[in-house]
Amino acid sequence: MEIEKIISIAKRRGFIFPSSEIYGGFSGHYDYGPVGILMKRKIENFWREFFVKSEKNIWEAETSLIQPEKVFQASGHLKDFIDPITQCKKCNTIYRADELVEELTHKPTQGMSVEELNKILKNHKCPKCKGQLGEIKVFNLMFKTTAGPIQGSSAYFRPETAQGIFINFRNLLNATRAKLPFGIAQSGKSFRNEISPRQWIMRLREFNQMEIEMFVHPKKLDIVENFNHYSKVKITILTREEQQKNGKPTEILVEEALKKGIIPNKFLAFFMAKEQVWYEKLGIPREAIRFRHMLPKETPHYSKGNFDMEIKFDFGWKEVVGNSYRTDFDLTSHSKSSGQDLSYIEEDGQKIIPHVIEPSFGIDRTIYAILLYSFRQGKERGWEWFELPPKISPYVAAVYPLLSKDNLPEKATEIFQHLRDDFDIFFDESGSIGKRYARADEIGVPFCLTIDHQTLKDSTLTIRDRNTTKQVRVKVSDLKEKLIEILHDKKISKG
Amino acid sequence: MEIEKIISIAKRRGFIFPSSEIYGGFSGHYDYGPVGILMKRKIENFWREFFVKSEKNIWEAETSLIQPEKVFQASGHLKDFIDPITQCKKCNTIYRADELVEELTHKPTQGMSVEELNKILKNHKCPKCKGQLGEIKVFNLMFKTTAGPIQGSSAYFRPETAQGIFINFRNLLNATRAKLPFGIAQSGKSFRNEISPRQWIMRLREFNQMEIEMFVHPKKLDIVENFNHYSKVKITILTREEQQKNGKPTEILVEEALKKGIIPNKFLAFFMAKEQVWYEKLGIPREAIRFRHMLPKETPHYSKGNFDMEIKFDFGWKEVVGNSYRTDFDLTSHSKSSGQDLSYIEEDGQKIIPHVIEPSFGIDRTIYAILLYSFRQGKERGWEWFELPPKISPYVAAVYPLLSKDNLPEKATEIFQHLRDDFDIFFDESGSIGKRYARADEIGVPFCLTIDHQTLKDSTLTIRDRNTTKQVRVKVSDLKEKLIEILHDKKISKG
Repeated sequence: MEIEKIISIAKRRGFIFPSSEIYGGFSGHYDYGPVGILMKRKIENFWREFFVKSEKNIWEAETSLIQPEKVFQASGHLKDFIDPITQCKKCNTIYRADELVEELTHKPTQGMSVEELNKILKNHKCPKCKGQLGEIKVFNLMFKTTAGPIQGSSAYFRPETAQGIFINFRNLLNATRAKLPFGIAQSGKSFRNEISPRQWIMRLREFNQMEIEMFVHPKKLDIVENFNHYSKVKITILTREEQQKNGKPTEILVEEALKKGIIPNKFLAFFMAKEQVWYEKLGIPREAIRFRHMLPKETPHYSKGNFDMEIKFDFGWKEVVGNSYRTDFDLTSHSKSSGQDLSYIEEDGQKIIPHVIEPSFGIDRTIYAILLYSFRQGKERGWEWFELPPKISPYVAAVYPLLSKDNLPEKATEIFQHLRDDFDIFFDESGSIGKRYARADEIGVPFCLTIDHQTLKDSTLTIRDRNTTKQVRVKVSDLKEKLIEILHDKKISKG
Repeated sequence: MEIEKIISIAKRRGFIFPSSEIYGGFSGHYDYGPVGILMKRKIENFWREFFVKSEKNIWEAETSLIQPEKVFQASGHLKDFIDPITQCKKCNTIYRADELVEELTHKPTQGMSVEELNKILKNHKCPKCKGQLGEIKVFNLMFKTTAGPIQGSSAYFRPETAQGIFINFRNLLNATRAKLPFGIAQSGKSFRNEISPRQWIMRLREFNQMEIEMFVHPKKLDIVENFNHYSKVKITILTREEQQKNGKPTEILVEEALKKGIIPNKFLAFFMAKEQVWYEKLGIPREAIRFRHMLPKETPHYSKGNFDMEIKFDFGWKEVVGNSYRTDFDLTSHSKSSGQDLSYIEEDGQKIIPHVIEPSFGIDRTIYAILLYSFRQGKERGWEWFELPPKISPYVAAVYPLLSKDNLPEKATEIFQHLRDDFDIFFDESGSIGKRYARADEIGVPFCLTIDHQTLKDSTLTIRDRNTTKQVRVKVSDLKEKLIEILHDKKISKG
């Protein structure tokens, strides 16, 4: 399988390591190695450039990972962010009770209480060992801890970055002096104590999110300043209706989907269009991206409607971006719980509670998708490579002296030092040039710069293209400009 | 007090907010607002440039925040990362038992067991209310949680980023193909359940660290490639001897301190010198920086000797960077506990366990120091400002149309768009130009670019210097180059 090769290269070359591997691993946790962290940071920066810096009215914040219990009482996570689970008394296998009931009865469990699920499971046995199933317990997916000494107070590691933004609404509004509509973005870790982490970096207990909470006037969900730049973007939507009758998804222009009421408001449409454009820039093919209107039973407790941007992975379609219409749910809840005024005052002095549109990106899943779709293998090379877009490649170039003599390493070092303040590049002089090309290909380096005897004479070097393996000679003095052009997408070498 | 003004501006303008403020705050946790996160990220990037990218043999990684119990059994944190505490039975005040004994008896408690401390406290009362003191309990400073459903397994939030690097030693070595000496850096959150968080963003329960674990041949602690660049840096050292007899610290060249054995090895000396240079670039004055050789009782369990880089704050001297000689403590412990080989194979085939030199930077404390030393107030302006170095200012420039008419906003928007891909800048057209200068000063913006009627005629604008308030006219076409020069430290405007 391709994905097994990818996971193996990712570990061997320093993209992604299993966490605590020397202690037998730690389910649901992964570490980024030297190559992985460079790529992850570039994806974050590119996201920031495309979704945050490009808009005049979106700012960023970074809030605490640990929050007190009151926050999650108000947000509903304490009560609703739960899975019902049952454990076989014989073989100890743990099941999600609702999923198990659906599997055993072939009937939907939407809206069923724990009592009802318990009643049904009484008549069934463990599918694995035919043992008796235990009483259903409700398992909260948040990691709980205690803050402070002795008794301490209950606190939780955030299951999403969003709550830190909502509870800071007043401070953020004061500091930015923003007018509606405006957004607050946040990139950082979130934590969910998943019952069964799986599929490499897909379902993790500790993961990286990039979220935007867009605060919007509830009656102005259809006034979006830059919408016209994206209205003609073509996306693929799987409606609720199509899902229920196993129908085919619809390919449609964003403005059309909006007009027909398939997408309920312009802010959602705006973000969905931008996501489509951005993921294509990351190398995900059009046909591997779709937007699925979540069914009512899947929709989170805080949302009035979710469109998941799904990508087709080796194992099937899976959410990578969640687009949520959170309404005034969070601000209203926190306002009630805290007794603080979290309203926005309009120019006419009227108070309103803004509504929230939230696109929420999974970084780890994005990296999974990028590695999957950029992976290449071919007999002619004898090794694998990743055709990563230069903008998010861990390194944009490698610098090689052809030989470790004749002053070539010194000349190469000079060129390396000339470039390294402005670009992520690396220097390598060990092994044959062919081996060095292979090592660069494996971590997706788009260009290898080789310094040879001719370099000493005329200040040119060979630049090898990862995608085509073709080499051309360029002047050293033209290098910086050429690399800047490539990184700014002005000219991308096509393989 | 100056610091109270700083804290107030930091909250009002979006540098730093108290976490969960609407619920009465959450001791030991703070949030970064829109201005704070820009500055924090620039400090991190500058650190990366100066300490990581500038060295050929230092890489970066990003490891899990949650780790299983076994990791901290091996690292010694489960056993040794503890405080003995006692609680008054009457007024419920919690004390660190060893500190309380020192306060009450005026004698050092170094090396005392819990039993001995208990025995002494039996003869004393609560200093606050004269109530009876409870039995001493040992309180581990790590945040504990449970991973996985039902019983789950004990896990902890990391108290330092370092352990994730040690347990990945084999993977990191394979991926980088590094030769000794080499370093792995990590920037990220760490967590310590402090008994009494205090002093704003100084003693936090959730904080940001930047660490480098430098793996070194134990017999080659004095071979450091780039040492000569820093050998003449002058630093201030407070030796153990000087501390014991309340002596004055020594001002000395790094190479001298090394020669005299004040600093025990060249790697420590190298990092200390770089820290001195870097913090001066951040605007901390020479006389507010000193290196203190920690006393034996303060030295962490894993260290053979620590030099704290301390900064003089409003409340006194405090550690901002810890420099630790961790020896082979961690690799040996993890190797024993896991049964895995964590040795390094030399060219002659011999196995050795590398020693570790670790500089560990507190980002939040660094920000505290920068804000403290860049803060200015003066009657002539009528407001406060921060003279932040341009490289780490949240924004490098503000773009203002002088008036909201006569096509000036359009022209200003054009210039704003021309610059914003390359620089962090903002646009503001509300209020008088004086008010806008004040607002920019308060968040440390080094330059305000004002577009007026002359701009429309000759494509020049006025650039106002935050430090001097002086204005000069420059050509719009020269702006980019000028700003790049300033950010690269080639030319810094002196106030």
